[in-house]
Amino acid sequence: MESRREQCSHSQSSMAGLHVRSLLVTGANRGIGLGLVQHFLRMPKPPQWIFAGCRDPKGQRAQELQNLASKHPNIIIIPLEVANPSSIKAAAAKVVEHLGGSGLNLLINNAGIVKLNTIDTETLEDMSEIYTTNTIGPLLMGQAFLPLLKKAAQGSPGSGLSCSKAAIINMSSIGGSIASSFGWDIMQVTSYRCSKAALNMLSKCQSLAYKEHGILCVALHPGWVQTDMGSSAGHTPPVTVDDSVQGMLKVLSSLSEKETGAFLDWEGQVIPW
Amino acid sequence: MESRREQCSHSQSSMAGLHVRSLLVTGANRGIGLGLVQHFLRMPKPPQWIFAGCRDPKGQRAQELQNLASKHPNIIIIPLEVANPSSIKAAAAKVVEHLGGSGLNLLINNAGIVKLNTIDTETLEDMSEIYTTNTIGPLLMGQAFLPLLKKAAQGSPGSGLSCSKAAIINMSSIGGSIASSFGWDIMQVTSYRCSKAALNMLSKCQSLAYKEHGILCVALHPGWVQTDMGSSAGHTPPVTVDDSVQGMLKVLSSLSEKETGAFLDWEGQVIPW
Repeated sequence: MESRREQCSHSQSSMAGLHVRSLLVTGANRGIGLGLVQHFLRMPKPPQWIFAGCRDPKGQRAQELQNLASKHPNIIIIPLEVANPSSIKAAAAKVVEHLGGSGLNLLINNAGIVKLNTIDTETLEDMSEIYTTNTIGPLLMGQAFLPLLKKAAQGSPGSGLSCSKAAIINMSSIGGSIASSFGWDIMQVTSYRCSKAALNMLSKCQSLAYKEHGILCVALHPGWVQTDMGSSAGHTPPVTVDDSVQGMLKVLSSLSEKETGAFLDWEGQVIPW
Repeated sequence: MESRREQCSHSQSSMAGLHVRSLLVTGANRGIGLGLVQHFLRMPKPPQWIFAGCRDPKGQRAQELQNLASKHPNIIIIPLEVANPSSIKAAAAKVVEHLGGSGLNLLINNAGIVKLNTIDTETLEDMSEIYTTNTIGPLLMGQAFLPLLKKAAQGSPGSGLSCSKAAIINMSSIGGSIASSFGWDIMQVTSYRCSKAALNMLSKCQSLAYKEHGILCVALHPGWVQTDMGSSAGHTPPVTVDDSVQGMLKVLSSLSEKETGAFLDWEGQVIPW
């Protein structure tokens, strides 16, 4: 208990710089996505709107998110399949409706999938499916929510970039670092690595295209986290969801225009492309 | 004339280290692919088999390749659509038939496409189509021709890696360099950039997976070349096909196990990921 209270107060003080009125998290029903929703709720001044995107809000796997939403009216669950352009359009329309005339501060492209293939067992279908969710999804989300992110940037004071103003956060992975080829010996997952390297490129492209609109864009590696995905090859990852999310929120609170387009881990370290 | 003769003799001497008995080039009907076929033909000791993959061998756009093949019986034109797994399988079967019991020394994944989109005009369809041809194609080609590449490696003397022994060359682009974001102001082409960053990752994965089989793998940037693709945005690229191909062949002749997994340009310079 004692240690948890300390963590919590540390978390609050370290995130003092992050003031977000509205955000959207994709894949918010479990793992890191759910952890992000929980941590935003616990902030001293929680967001007015937490849009929690999830593929199947009525499914078994969304139960915990549903329970949380029933207690916190600022959580709005949004049906969202990021591999489907019409689902994205419908989600954007719902978010616009809730926000009335105001913008969206933070888009967190967290939804992602992996298949435990070796390079020999990859197929066109798996390569394509994983790229569509992990890379094309974040592109389409950026396009669809650009008007709302612009609006948030225009409505915020100051000329610099920050996550409190307007930002796109793409959940990448050190597995997408071409330079490091981290973990190759235990997980080849070529389709996943290719999709995350491409996502890193997308983040760079978004940062270049959206800077003039006042929108910060980064790729984040959450650490090797104790989630269904992190544990999928039968390993026990070293980082808890809580520690990962707390670390990432601290990183987000510290970002400025200097970091837009960067690839950072949950402790703020730059990862080589 | 004088200067051309000099170039030619320079080209021959600089490629003295490249002795390839068989190779396959995808997208061989024009641009850099056709240039590669022509330069291999001009070598002092030309390859015994030059498999020239092309989507539509009977089409108007394959006329020049057909003319060349009618004069050079070592050119075998192979119908090949790298976005189609069954086309790849059929092509591999044809190549096996021609090679009899011997292996394939060099696979050059040269086929690639681009669409001149801005980040705002990218669509799921374009992102997907470009990734399938530029990234998934080279993965599937590597899988399908792996037995032939292994056979070539096993049949070659020495323990190191080289392009004369067995290699996969992926035609990448500096546009796929996340660190450099080269040319963003004149061409956003996010779908192309993402596909080439992913292709760079694939090259790294192939180098790690295939090293034990004696196969060298690199990603090459051919320069900004005077081809249909290079000129597609109305610009005049600085590099001729001849100079690009000559440079790349010189680079290929110099590669050893030290360079496997690298990203190099047509003059041998390392490009940052």
